[in-house]
Amino acid sequence: MKLEIDRERLITELDTLASFSDAPAPAVTRLAYSETDRQAREYVKSLCGLAGLAVRWDAVGNLFARWHGAEGEAAVGTGSHIDAIPNAGRYDGTVGVLGALEAIRALQRAGFRPRRPIELVVFAAEEPTRFGIGCFGSRLLAGTLDGSAGDALRDSENRTLNQWRAAAGFMGDVAGVRLPAGYYAAFVELHIEQGPLLERAAIPLGIVTAIAAPASLRMWLEGDGGHAGGVLMPERRDALCAAAEIVLAVEAAAKATGAADTVGTVGVCDVFPSAINSIPSRVKIEIDIRDIDEARRNGVLECVENVAHDVAARRGISVKTEIINVDAPAQCDPAVVTVLERAAAARGLPCRRMVSRAYHDSLFMARVAPTAMLFIPCRGGVSHRPDEYAAPEAIAAGALVLAEALAELAS
Amino acid sequence: MKLEIDRERLITELDTLASFSDAPAPAVTRLAYSETDRQAREYVKSLCGLAGLAVRWDAVGNLFARWHGAEGEAAVGTGSHIDAIPNAGRYDGTVGVLGALEAIRALQRAGFRPRRPIELVVFAAEEPTRFGIGCFGSRLLAGTLDGSAGDALRDSENRTLNQWRAAAGFMGDVAGVRLPAGYYAAFVELHIEQGPLLERAAIPLGIVTAIAAPASLRMWLEGDGGHAGGVLMPERRDALCAAAEIVLAVEAAAKATGAADTVGTVGVCDVFPSAINSIPSRVKIEIDIRDIDEARRNGVLECVENVAHDVAARRGISVKTEIINVDAPAQCDPAVVTVLERAAAARGLPCRRMVSRAYHDSLFMARVAPTAMLFIPCRGGVSHRPDEYAAPEAIAAGALVLAEALAELAS
Repeated sequence: MKLEIDRERLITELDTLASFSDAPAPAVTRLAYSETDRQAREYVKSLCGLAGLAVRWDAVGNLFARWHGAEGEAAVGTGSHIDAIPNAGRYDGTVGVLGALEAIRALQRAGFRPRRPIELVVFAAEEPTRFGIGCFGSRLLAGTLDGSAGDALRDSENRTLNQWRAAAGFMGDVAGVRLPAGYYAAFVELHIEQGPLLERAAIPLGIVTAIAAPASLRMWLEGDGGHAGGVLMPERRDALCAAAEIVLAVEAAAKATGAADTVGTVGVCDVFPSAINSIPSRVKIEIDIRDIDEARRNGVLECVENVAHDVAARRGISVKTEIINVDAPAQCDPAVVTVLERAAAARGLPCRRMVSRAYHDSLFMARVAPTAMLFIPCRGGVSHRPDEYAAPEAIAAGALVLAEALAELAS
Repeated sequence: MKLEIDRERLITELDTLASFSDAPAPAVTRLAYSETDRQAREYVKSLCGLAGLAVRWDAVGNLFARWHGAEGEAAVGTGSHIDAIPNAGRYDGTVGVLGALEAIRALQRAGFRPRRPIELVVFAAEEPTRFGIGCFGSRLLAGTLDGSAGDALRDSENRTLNQWRAAAGFMGDVAGVRLPAGYYAAFVELHIEQGPLLERAAIPLGIVTAIAAPASLRMWLEGDGGHAGGVLMPERRDALCAAAEIVLAVEAAAKATGAADTVGTVGVCDVFPSAINSIPSRVKIEIDIRDIDEARRNGVLECVENVAHDVAARRGISVKTEIINVDAPAQCDPAVVTVLERAAAARGLPCRRMVSRAYHDSLFMARVAPTAMLFIPCRGGVSHRPDEYAAPEAIAAGALVLAEALAELAS
C-alpha cells in the first residue's frame, strides 16, 4: 500500500489549532470547556467532517469521528486530547489527534477499505487544570468514575463539572458516557514523548509497553495568620513555612527511591491571604507523584503524608489531605505493541520499547481495550512549556507508522 | 476640663466603617484606591464635616480635616489610615482615625478652644498590598519619595499609582504632596498594639518610644518548567523547591538572632504556571523583615540574600531581588512621649513605654514632626485577621487620653 503523509498540511493544521489559545503565541492555554477549547474542538470536528468521517459528541464532550467499516465489527480507536494547561506548547495531545486524522486521510488516499471501523477520539479534559483530576473524559469512557462526578468535581471557584459542560453545550447523563464492553477491538495513541530518551538515543519512534502509575493529592494547611510585624517568631503557626517543608519533602522522597522513574512535583501552592505584611494562615498545595512501579510510588506517597503530619504536629498546623487520584499503572497489550513494531519495521523506521512516565488517556483506554502507544521525540524532552517542539519529520513519521498500524488492526 | 468620650457613637462609627468592605463580615478588605476605599473615605470626610472641620484632599488622597486655631500657628496633627489588607479586621488604623475624630469632638463638647490648629490626617495607602510599599501617603508627606513614584510604583497587573489615583479622582503633582517644614508642631497616632504585650500585662495604654525598622523585598526565582511526569528529578530546576528553601531560611534567620524583636515573614508566594502536572518554572516571593535594631535587621536581610544566592547557584535557578523598602527605625520625640504619659496620668490610666514592632505612618511623620504613638491592647495581639478585636473601653480610653494630650499640645 502506498501510504503518504501530507506533512505540510498536517503541520499547518497543528499551527492553526495552536492559534486557538488564551495566551499569546508561542504559548498555548486552552483549558477544558473554555470558549477557546470549544472553538478548537469545532475546528477539529470540521476537519473530520471534511474527511468524510461521521461525527458525534458524548455528554461530556468527548468527540468521536468514525470511518465506517463493515457492519457489526468492533472499531479500532485512535486519538488523544487537545486541551492544554496554562502556558503550554502546541504538540502535547494535538499530535495524536491531527496525526491520527492525517493517518486516516492517508489510508483513504491509498484506497484502503477498513473491515473494522476506524474511530478517532478527541478526549475531553485530559489535563487536570480545571478539576484537579486528569483524563476526565477517558476515565468516564472506561467506567472508572460514576455519574456523581458531574456534581462532585469542582474547579477552584467551586463551579461544578456539570455547570461547565452545560455552559459548553453538553447535556445528558454523565454515567452514560461509559463505553459498552468490546466497543474497541484495539486502541492506539500517538503522542510526543515528553521526556528526552528518544531524542538522546536518536531513535524516531518509541513503542510504549507500560504507563506509569500517577497519584495526585491536594493538601490544605491551616495555621494562624496575623501581622508580620506584630507576632513574635515563637508564637507563629505559619502555614507557608509548613508547606515549604512539605515541598522539599516531596522532592527528597522522590529522589530517595534511587529509581530514575520516580518523580514528585508540587505544581500548585496557593497562599492566603497573600499579603506581604501578613503571616500566611492557609496554604493549598497540589502534589503529583509518579512511578512505573506502583508499590514504589505508594511508598513515596506514604512518606510525604507522614512528613506532612509530622510537620503539622510540630508547627501546630492542621493538615487536610484529599486524594485526587491514585491510579494503577497500565500494561500495554502485547499484540498491539507487536503490530506497532511491525508497522515501524514496514516503514523502515527504528523503534524502541519504553515506558511512559507521563500518563495519558491510554492509561484508562487500556482498561477497556487492547491498547498501546506510539511516541515520537520532542526537543530536549520539553513539554508543558511554550518551547515544546516536535520536528515535522518526526510528526510525519509517527502519523505514517500509525496509519500502517491502523490498517493492520482494521483489516 | 470635663472630657467625655461618646463610646457608643465611636463604636457605631467603627462598625459602619467596617461595612465598607470587599469581603464578607467580619472580614474587612479595603485596598487603597478601590471603590470601597473611596466610599469609606467619603464616609469619614462626611463625619469630619459634621464636626465642623475644614476638609481637604491632597494629590494622592491623603485627607486633612482641620479644627482651626489661632492664625499662623503650626498645627498639631493626629490620625492614621483606613485602608485594609485582604481579609483583615476592623480596628487597624481606623481606631486612630475615628478615635481622633471623637477626641476632637470631645474637646469641642468640653468647650476647649485650641491655640494651635488640630488636624486629623487620614493617610492614603498605608498598607503595602497594592504597590508593595507601605505608608505610601506618609512617605510622600515626609518627602522620602520623589515625584517619579507616581509612574514607578506598579501593582501586580502593572497598573501605575498614577493610573490608580487618577481613577480615584486624584490629580496633580505627586511631589507637591510633601509637607512644608514645620507644618506640624507635633504628631500623635493612636493605634491598636498588634501584639500581645499590653493585654498580657493588663495595662490599658502603651506609649511608643521607637518604631521598628522594616525592610521588604521581592524575589523572582526562575528555573525550568516542564511536564511533572516527563522530567527526571536530577534534571529539574524547580523554582518552587528553591523558594521553599528561602522561605525556611527567612524563618531560621529571624529566629537565629536570638532577639525577640526580630521577625521575618514570607507573606506572598506566587507560582507560575501553577498547574498540578507542571514543574514550577517561576516563583515570586515577597519577604518582610523587621527589628527595632537596624543593624540586626540588616544582618538578617543579608543572610537571606546570601542563602537565596546559594540556593539559586546550587539549583541552577536565577534569582532577581528587588528591594521594596529598607527603612531606618524612628525614635519618638521625648517631649511628646512625656505629654502622652502626663495625659494618661491625668485620666488615672496606667501606661508603659514600649517599642512598636509594626510600622506605621508615624515612622515617616517622625522625620518631619515631633511624633509619638499611643497604643491600646488588642485581643490576643491579633491583627490583620477578621478576628482582630479591641474592646470598646480600650478604644474609649485611647481616645480620651489622646484628647487630653491634644489639648496640651494645642494650648
